[in-house]
Amino acid sequence: MRAAALRSGRIYVNDDVPEPQPGFGQVLVQVRACGICGSDLHFVDHGPQMIDLGKQMKGMPDLAGFGADPDAEPAPELDFDRDIFMGHEFSAEVLEAGPDTDAPPPGTLVTSLPVLMTPRGIAPIVYSNEVHGGYGERMLLSAGLLMPVPNGLDARHAALTEPMAVGLHAVNKSRVAQGEGALVLGCGPVGLACIAALRLKGIDTIVAADFSPARRAIAAQMGATEVVDPAQEDAFDAWQRAGRGKQLVVFEAIGVPGIIDTVLRDAPVGTRLLVVGVCMEHDTINPFFGISKELNIQFALAYDPMEFAECLRAIAEGDIDVSPMITGEVGLDEVPAAFEALRNPEAHCKILVTP
Amino acid sequence: MRAAALRSGRIYVNDDVPEPQPGFGQVLVQVRACGICGSDLHFVDHGPQMIDLGKQMKGMPDLAGFGADPDAEPAPELDFDRDIFMGHEFSAEVLEAGPDTDAPPPGTLVTSLPVLMTPRGIAPIVYSNEVHGGYGERMLLSAGLLMPVPNGLDARHAALTEPMAVGLHAVNKSRVAQGEGALVLGCGPVGLACIAALRLKGIDTIVAADFSPARRAIAAQMGATEVVDPAQEDAFDAWQRAGRGKQLVVFEAIGVPGIIDTVLRDAPVGTRLLVVGVCMEHDTINPFFGISKELNIQFALAYDPMEFAECLRAIAEGDIDVSPMITGEVGLDEVPAAFEALRNPEAHCKILVTP
Repeated sequence: MRAAALRSGRIYVNDDVPEPQPGFGQVLVQVRACGICGSDLHFVDHGPQMIDLGKQMKGMPDLAGFGADPDAEPAPELDFDRDIFMGHEFSAEVLEAGPDTDAPPPGTLVTSLPVLMTPRGIAPIVYSNEVHGGYGERMLLSAGLLMPVPNGLDARHAALTEPMAVGLHAVNKSRVAQGEGALVLGCGPVGLACIAALRLKGIDTIVAADFSPARRAIAAQMGATEVVDPAQEDAFDAWQRAGRGKQLVVFEAIGVPGIIDTVLRDAPVGTRLLVVGVCMEHDTINPFFGISKELNIQFALAYDPMEFAECLRAIAEGDIDVSPMITGEVGLDEVPAAFEALRNPEAHCKILVTP
Repeated sequence: MRAAALRSGRIYVNDDVPEPQPGFGQVLVQVRACGICGSDLHFVDHGPQMIDLGKQMKGMPDLAGFGADPDAEPAPELDFDRDIFMGHEFSAEVLEAGPDTDAPPPGTLVTSLPVLMTPRGIAPIVYSNEVHGGYGERMLLSAGLLMPVPNGLDARHAALTEPMAVGLHAVNKSRVAQGEGALVLGCGPVGLACIAALRLKGIDTIVAADFSPARRAIAAQMGATEVVDPAQEDAFDAWQRAGRGKQLVVFEAIGVPGIIDTVLRDAPVGTRLLVVGVCMEHDTINPFFGISKELNIQFALAYDPMEFAECLRAIAEGDIDVSPMITGEVGLDEVPAAFEALRNPEAHCKILVTP
């Protein structure tokens, strides 16, 4: 089959990828749509560095060993000179269940948390030499994690369940409450997902900042009550004007060095900061700013299954309209160019791959 | 009168400081004991840098203007070439109330939040060219903030109310709950105050780490259930051993660059980090660590009046025994040498000035 893959630092299309074979508990699916995620762009640029940072960390649960066949060989290390399969924001159609596996009937449109149960244990569907992602024709999913797409929802919209769940999780982590307000820094897909989730939770003061006019326009469509161009007005000045003294929760969805320190320096006393933008580089902060104002920083990652299901429901019921975010649709051959096109925020927001 | 002061980067004793004169709402007191705080050592080293960082910050309340006489001149900027008075951990004896001011009778032993109400508004008693602190014979306090010292508590122990309140506030900010455990990094006075407050709150797993044997011994006396020498065993390994899977709250009471990133790298998933050590320098972190483990950083500063009062009560009732922390007592003439002596954690913990 065909799949776009990362190999030796660049995205290309491999026409001769072995067909995935569903094992027990697995389901073979035909990918219908898969969003290109900013974290995949980051991974192209900083993949080896990210793997290295991951190795430095202690205190992580050993997911790879969880549920593994004790006789299975451990998964080998990620090899950047072989194909790395990516694509974790997908919807797909059921083709065939593995042996002794219950699954929805063939033809059912589904989505799923990007996690595959394998004999080696739990494997995230995010970047792997072995586990296929949504930038290919077909892939394997875990039967027990499939969520049928309700209400006849378009497969392209269903594919945005995953990025919207990232925003909902960040908003839940923030414990933002009625009467508080939000400032969203960066209106890429993650920032926009935060805006949609804040609106879903009934937050009525949502200031969104982005240098791109196109992104600001989408932010307003997704539910921002005020959009600001930081070249014209400082984002925190805009908040002071629009927030009228409310408790502030900042969502940092930019993920480049320096942003966290800017928030520490400029945010009001007692602000809570959600870091949801993924910065892969070293960053410099002045703890003195945080101490002087008793700020709180909560780092957020991913979502839980309930949040994922809530987003699928909200999109299918029309409580979240993801259509303003979709700015492009490409076939597999155009995936390498789409990765480049996404570097221009004025040109694109979310590009869907429809293999 | 006599007072130790900071002038042009060094601590000296000025024998000819003008006597403070109590105005309306103020009380003249005779200082009985004043602890030398680590933040004062920091201020000697990094004072101008700290003032500069303070100027960069937005979002701070304008305390100086709060309650000010509208006709009063604003306070001039801190001048490092004039005497800077410090000393905010004090107990004192009432001498004389200002005009039309109610105060406890002369001779009453009191302590107070280190804040003075002046015609120019609220002035912290921390470092000032104008407002005297506890490193002098006499100072002014606000009548409305005086807390009489109960139970015949020793004036030297009462002086530790302020640093213990810093620890209690950090513990309250952490929302640490029964069944959770704590790792305290650094057993200087701030870390020790956190340990005492954790013990006061009934936390039964308190691991304390410090390179100094003397500090570790005091930590055990203050309530640490396990002490660790990081030269022998990594602090997080010690936690894994002693914490037995409990939710972890880390108290960072070291305040030097690099510690926050070490916590992000080594702490278990979901750890909450309280930053209570004051780092005045730039610091480097890897947000990737925090994101991967969904960590939370809460910066903490000072305390509220209820926490201050609770500490005074706890010390006076014997619920917190501060005596292990007091390692020295000096007169005004020895204050410059005491600032130097405190740089050796093996030699000293808390030195009290008894002018």
